[in-house]
Amino acid sequence: MAKRRKLLLRRPKTSKTVNQIPGTMTYVGHKELTETKLDVIDYNLESFERYTSNSPEDAFKFVDEERVTWFNIDGLNNIKDIEKLGEYYELHPLVMEDIVNTGQRPKIEEYQDYLFVVAKMLYYKNGDIENEHISMIVGKNYILTFQESNGDVFDPVRERIETSKGRIRGRSADYLMFALLDSIIDNYFLVIDDMSDRIEALEESLFTSKPSDDITYEIQDLKRNILRIRRAVFPLREVISRLEKLENDLIDPKTSNYIRDLYDHIIQISENIEIYREMIWGLMDMYMTTISNRMNEVMKVLTIMASIFIPLTFIAGIYGMNFEYIPELQWKYSYFVLWGIMIIIFLLMLYYFKRKKWL
Amino acid sequence: MAKRRKLLLRRPKTSKTVNQIPGTMTYVGHKELTETKLDVIDYNLESFERYTSNSPEDAFKFVDEERVTWFNIDGLNNIKDIEKLGEYYELHPLVMEDIVNTGQRPKIEEYQDYLFVVAKMLYYKNGDIENEHISMIVGKNYILTFQESNGDVFDPVRERIETSKGRIRGRSADYLMFALLDSIIDNYFLVIDDMSDRIEALEESLFTSKPSDDITYEIQDLKRNILRIRRAVFPLREVISRLEKLENDLIDPKTSNYIRDLYDHIIQISENIEIYREMIWGLMDMYMTTISNRMNEVMKVLTIMASIFIPLTFIAGIYGMNFEYIPELQWKYSYFVLWGIMIIIFLLMLYYFKRKKWL
Amino acid sequence: MAKRRKLLLRRPKTSKTVNQIPGTMTYVGHKELTETKLDVIDYNLESFERYTSNSPEDAFKFVDEERVTWFNIDGLNNIKDIEKLGEYYELHPLVMEDIVNTGQRPKIEEYQDYLFVVAKMLYYKNGDIENEHISMIVGKNYILTFQESNGDVFDPVRERIETSKGRIRGRSADYLMFALLDSIIDNYFLVIDDMSDRIEALEESLFTSKPSDDITYEIQDLKRNILRIRRAVFPLREVISRLEKLENDLIDPKTSNYIRDLYDHIIQISENIEIYREMIWGLMDMYMTTISNRMNEVMKVLTIMASIFIPLTFIAGIYGMNFEYIPELQWKYSYFVLWGIMIIIFLLMLYYFKRKKWL
Amino acid sequence: MAKRRKLLLRRPKTSKTVNQIPGTMTYVGHKELTETKLDVIDYNLESFERYTSNSPEDAFKFVDEERVTWFNIDGLNNIKDIEKLGEYYELHPLVMEDIVNTGQRPKIEEYQDYLFVVAKMLYYKNGDIENEHISMIVGKNYILTFQESNGDVFDPVRERIETSKGRIRGRSADYLMFALLDSIIDNYFLVIDDMSDRIEALEESLFTSKPSDDITYEIQDLKRNILRIRRAVFPLREVISRLEKLENDLIDPKTSNYIRDLYDHIIQISENIEIYREMIWGLMDMYMTTISNRMNEVMKVLTIMASIFIPLTFIAGIYGMNFEYIPELQWKYSYFVLWGIMIIIFLLMLYYFKRKKWL
Amino acid sequence: MAKRRKLLLRRPKTSKTVNQIPGTMTYVGHKELTETKLDVIDYNLESFERYTSNSPEDAFKFVDEERVTWFNIDGLNNIKDIEKLGEYYELHPLVMEDIVNTGQRPKIEEYQDYLFVVAKMLYYKNGDIENEHISMIVGKNYILTFQESNGDVFDPVRERIETSKGRIRGRSADYLMFALLDSIIDNYFLVIDDMSDRIEALEESLFTSKPSDDITYEIQDLKRNILRIRRAVFPLREVISRLEKLENDLIDPKTSNYIRDLYDHIIQISENIEIYREMIWGLMDMYMTTISNRMNEVMKVLTIMASIFIPLTFIAGIYGMNFEYIPELQWKYSYFVLWGIMIIIFLLMLYYFKRKKWL
Repeated sequence: MAKRRKLLLRRPKTSKTVNQIPGTMTYVGHKELTETKLDVIDYNLESFERYTSNSPEDAFKFVDEERVTWFNIDGLNNIKDIEKLGEYYELHPLVMEDIVNTGQRPKIEEYQDYLFVVAKMLYYKNGDIENEHISMIVGKNYILTFQESNGDVFDPVRERIETSKGRIRGRSADYLMFALLDSIIDNYFLVIDDMSDRIEALEESLFTSKPSDDITYEIQDLKRNILRIRRAVFPLREVISRLEKLENDLIDPKTSNYIRDLYDHIIQISENIEIYREMIWGLMDMYMTTISNRMNEVMKVLTIMASIFIPLTFIAGIYGMNFEYIPELQWKYSYFVLWGIMIIIFLLMLYYFKRKKWL
Repeated sequence: MAKRRKLLLRRPKTSKTVNQIPGTMTYVGHKELTETKLDVIDYNLESFERYTSNSPEDAFKFVDEERVTWFNIDGLNNIKDIEKLGEYYELHPLVMEDIVNTGQRPKIEEYQDYLFVVAKMLYYKNGDIENEHISMIVGKNYILTFQESNGDVFDPVRERIETSKGRIRGRSADYLMFALLDSIIDNYFLVIDDMSDRIEALEESLFTSKPSDDITYEIQDLKRNILRIRRAVFPLREVISRLEKLENDLIDPKTSNYIRDLYDHIIQISENIEIYREMIWGLMDMYMTTISNRMNEVMKVLTIMASIFIPLTFIAGIYGMNFEYIPELQWKYSYFVLWGIMIIIFLLMLYYFKRKKWL
Repeated sequence: MAKRRKLLLRRPKTSKTVNQIPGTMTYVGHKELTETKLDVIDYNLESFERYTSNSPEDAFKFVDEERVTWFNIDGLNNIKDIEKLGEYYELHPLVMEDIVNTGQRPKIEEYQDYLFVVAKMLYYKNGDIENEHISMIVGKNYILTFQESNGDVFDPVRERIETSKGRIRGRSADYLMFALLDSIIDNYFLVIDDMSDRIEALEESLFTSKPSDDITYEIQDLKRNILRIRRAVFPLREVISRLEKLENDLIDPKTSNYIRDLYDHIIQISENIEIYREMIWGLMDMYMTTISNRMNEVMKVLTIMASIFIPLTFIAGIYGMNFEYIPELQWKYSYFVLWGIMIIIFLLMLYYFKRKKWL
Repeated sequence: MAKRRKLLLRRPKTSKTVNQIPGTMTYVGHKELTETKLDVIDYNLESFERYTSNSPEDAFKFVDEERVTWFNIDGLNNIKDIEKLGEYYELHPLVMEDIVNTGQRPKIEEYQDYLFVVAKMLYYKNGDIENEHISMIVGKNYILTFQESNGDVFDPVRERIETSKGRIRGRSADYLMFALLDSIIDNYFLVIDDMSDRIEALEESLFTSKPSDDITYEIQDLKRNILRIRRAVFPLREVISRLEKLENDLIDPKTSNYIRDLYDHIIQISENIEIYREMIWGLMDMYMTTISNRMNEVMKVLTIMASIFIPLTFIAGIYGMNFEYIPELQWKYSYFVLWGIMIIIFLLMLYYFKRKKWL
Repeated sequence: MAKRRKLLLRRPKTSKTVNQIPGTMTYVGHKELTETKLDVIDYNLESFERYTSNSPEDAFKFVDEERVTWFNIDGLNNIKDIEKLGEYYELHPLVMEDIVNTGQRPKIEEYQDYLFVVAKMLYYKNGDIENEHISMIVGKNYILTFQESNGDVFDPVRERIETSKGRIRGRSADYLMFALLDSIIDNYFLVIDDMSDRIEALEESLFTSKPSDDITYEIQDLKRNILRIRRAVFPLREVISRLEKLENDLIDPKTSNYIRDLYDHIIQISENIEIYREMIWGLMDMYMTTISNRMNEVMKVLTIMASIFIPLTFIAGIYGMNFEYIPELQWKYSYFVLWGIMIIIFLLMLYYFKRKKWL
């Protein structure tokens, strides 16, 4: 039962903070960090700088028209630090609210000077799927990313910037946004592949293991998981689709091919989700038929045993009666003849069940 | 059965008043108040006034171009009081009809001088979900809200106006409308979270408790509830969507960001409703498999007991026969040898069931 | 079985008259009247006249530009009478065909001088839902309504015209059309409420009554009924929607608010139909689980009885054997000790089943 | 099994001729005629001529601007004859391919001088539903129709032309096209009504006949059939819809009312198909519950018999034991008292099962 | 189990290469060829040349404005060879990535000088359905096709070019593209027909063979397969649809009729997929009912045997009791009368079960 409990605790947190003033920032997630960590990466084609701090103010010196600056903030529970950044970049109060509201679904919004993108990171941490709220502010030459906790899926992007591999250093902030979204979506593939593995393992175990409520539970858990993944992926698909069609100075037309590629990938993931969903829904039916097959087998054993021995016992009972005049009792060979009759009955029964294909 | 009865009585009231003249006001809800209660809140950035009365006429003195006035009317069964307000504000007869027709679904309608919005409040009262009809007339500098009974979800808004917290005092009536709708939608989150708790509790009990019709009933009841919640939420989603796109002097462009935020929230609720719906529909299948598993277990016990003892009883029956010539009967060790044979049969049977994984 | 038969006879009549010339009038319904009844109501704001006849020609004298005339024709089987009216008002042959073709689904068509509206009346007659084909010709200052049989849902409208209650006398023919459609739709609410009652009664009986095929049949019958109601309602929704958007001189803009109200009502009915549909589909699953629960109970009784007494009978059988040397037989207290052992086995069994929660 | 086999052989033929040059004519249907039959009907308002031949060349003499000529070709397996017609009328190679490709779904295509319409005839032949591929070339003053075999649904049209009944003789080729499509669709009603009869018969037999795999098979067969009918009807609906909106010199505006009527009919059929589909899908659930009910009954009989007689047999077994000291055995009235006890147990059992409503 | 394993290994490969730089070419499929094979077909109306090589550079000499050149590349694991081609034809890096990314779904993209089309070949190889990634670059007078392994479905096209059959030699590259897509789609028909055969075989075996988990597995496998085929076909449908509407100099208007024909075919396949899907989903229900029918039969045998012999055994047990005073025991004909009674009980039982239609 320990396993079940854990799953229950991971249930989707829908609650936004009820009855608060709209625009109020309240972190409703489970991941509390003692301090906000700021990681700044500042680059152009020629040079690269990386800077880590616990205080957002330190970061403002990096802002420079000629270079791309990526501020990554880990930890959403220290509202004040995020508020300072928000004020500096003049973010709308509702944007500020959505950055820390982990219940917010993926979306994209255009503001005067920036794009606001919300997505969900799905990745593995200690063998479990971690669902993490992530938001991005994409400006002319900067990107702010806000995450719930340390550890993310962006390390390959960081490495590419640092080692100057690929196109990334020569492009502006919109390409960085693409690269980050691409990292997020890449990790969906891993999560999706894991679903596929779990489905197959479960299918196997339906046939091999003894029927038990654990399988029922596991199927329901798979359902819950695929629905939760879907909730992260499907709205993001709309986000990417809108991004593709967006006419905004912040998006370089050269980047739009890449965004179309992103869209391809997320469609691919969506298709897989739908297929796995159908497979999972099918599992319950499969399970029902395997249980019924088991039951059929049990019933056959009972029926065969009872059908063979109940009539024989009856015959034995007949000659156990104490009537004074039972002519067969005196005859010397009665006992042996009776054995003969009983063996014939036994064999006829076996033949009958054989013909019915019950044996 | 007491519990069931109550649920049955709460069934959705679809009936509008059949065969009446269109535009006739008839209250069809269950909540009868002895008198209509009028609560007026009148404010601008500088000052705030609150006034409570039982007579609508008292309220008209508050109307003032420079200030926002919010008339809240509790109790829809006293048609006449509402008619007076309707006449004063020149409301369309069909609007008047919809204000008291609790069967009316959420909608928005534009009239010359006002917007007419219908929504459903869902909130907890004595541990039960209460579904209450609410309508709003949104004018240039006033809002009328009509509710079925005392007690609502607007207290946080009232408090914010009174204490001048947040943006609300400096904005006009459209922002107040937003704040009220936001309160309503916030409470949907609570109701939705409760559904989630009930689903999980039921899942737990499927595995732990003894199969019974109560579980079937509970699942059907969950279905009914989620469908009913959906009926309150989904049309409101369209209302908010239309509100977002509305081009009307009554809506300040500055408010539209907030309405978009509202739309985000209601989409989030809708998604959750759909997920919970799928989970609930899955519960019935889960329940079927757990029942079948239980039955399987019962059958196994029967089959094992019968398969072991029926043949043994047959053997005992053989030697209970009264034939005169049964050679084994005379032999001294027959009885002990027979016990040996029976124990061997018993052990073989156990081994057979063990191998079949029935034990 | 009597009840079943009747239901079968009421099955939906899909057949139009196959292989006839298009535009041929053939009445395919079940309701044959010996003579066509004509009921004329002629009114304006000042005066009201009502006239009943069996001959359509009598009616033409009423046509008058200044007044609204409503011709109501009961009985579609006397094709000739209807043809005369059709000729007088120059109706298109396909319109004529659809007036008497009871298989025609609800629709609206614009012609040069009139609108042609087809709808389905659903109402109670002798405790059964009656589905009746109704068509309307809406002209500048007249309305023709064609029904299958005497008795309809329009009496409240007639009364309002006569007693001059409400807006109806002061408005033109389009408002009368609205009032008639409103009457039809109002009656859908009654039929829908009855569905709701039947669903709840059936839910109750699933739990209380003994499983039987009648319940299966009743569920299937509910399915059939809800699908049939849906077939009457859903196309009418499109009709009302098109009516709302229609730009036609025949429709006064003042009437369009009322038509929007009509649309609200029919959407509300559609939503209820969908909810009841889901509930009905859920009933079959519920029923399956209650049957399985019953079966579980039956199996438990059998298993408990057999598991307890089969081993005990075996023991009794042992000491019924006739071996010459069974040491226990001679011992004086054997019988009492055996009773003791058997009672202990009995109690252990009870305890085992208790722990398994089977008792 | 004979019946099943036949059904299997009738399975949908999806194969177009794989890996052939596009535009290659290959007949893939089952209906081979030894010779192609040509039936020409040539008419205008004044006169009518009919001519039958086996050689297409004979037909070309009929082409005349002032008259409508309808060439009907029976038999698609003689590719050459069809090719000659195709060349004369300058049909596109892909049109030629589709005329003989019976796998082609219903469609409409506009070419320079003609419309190309493909539909499926469904009609009864020897008690079976026959699905026949039909294509039409609709030109200015001629129509070509191509069918797989002799016998069709067009006889009523032929008769109307001949006897000059209805509008048909005075109109041009587009009206003839309408009349032919109308005949095809009229026959769908018959097929659909037959589905309805089969569904009801099956429902009846679920309750009355003994559970058997035949019923399962019959339900699956109904599913297959309704899906196949749907495949013929639904694409034709789109065809009619496009025909209605078509702006083409070949379609006289006066005909469009009739095409709208056609559209009405095909929508009506589609609705019925969807309803029957839901009913058929429901049948499997119904069947499951009736099987379960039967099983419940069987189990009850077993449980009642076993529960009553197993304990009684145990008691009899007790007094069949051969212990030397069983005090009851000596008492004179033991036997009668025991009968008394056993009858009481028997009655208590009956009462118990009665109370459980198992009897 | 051997068969199952194999199926599991064939599971859909969703993974694109996670966390790589976008535009990086990585082959993720299973089919590794030791060397890339290049097959060049160069033709115009007058002449034809075919050339095979292992080095792409050799191919560039064929490029000629006046002739159509078709480069077919087998083997995607030698990235470098493909890169050379990509550089020569100035393909976009994302195109290069998609050529080797076998997880990419079917799509079409327009670039400056070429169209990029991705599709999936489905064909039989050693009795298994092979799913192979194929991409096409369609330029002014050349086509590049990239495949995973040797062997494809294009041989009929090659033959037609070589033998100058059909239109193909006189047309430009777009017609070749059509011919290639036509070959791919033609092979879908074969795969689809095979699905149909498997479904029917399974239906047959449901009724004839003994219930077993293999059938459950087979049904689930069919589900998986149809979903996988759907994933290849449905996106290609969109591709063809877009191709039809494309306004691009590369597509000759004369080719568009052929593309429309292609669209017809793929719609036809899609319809069949949907029908087979419904049939497959129905199989599980069918299977459940056949299992239940089997179980019913088993239970009946048990119930009949037990109900007949348990009471008879009880009677025999009665007269096996050792009471001193059992009056019947002394009577001479008791034994024979008892046999009579038991035979009567036996016959009554048979009659009862006969009337219940259990025999």
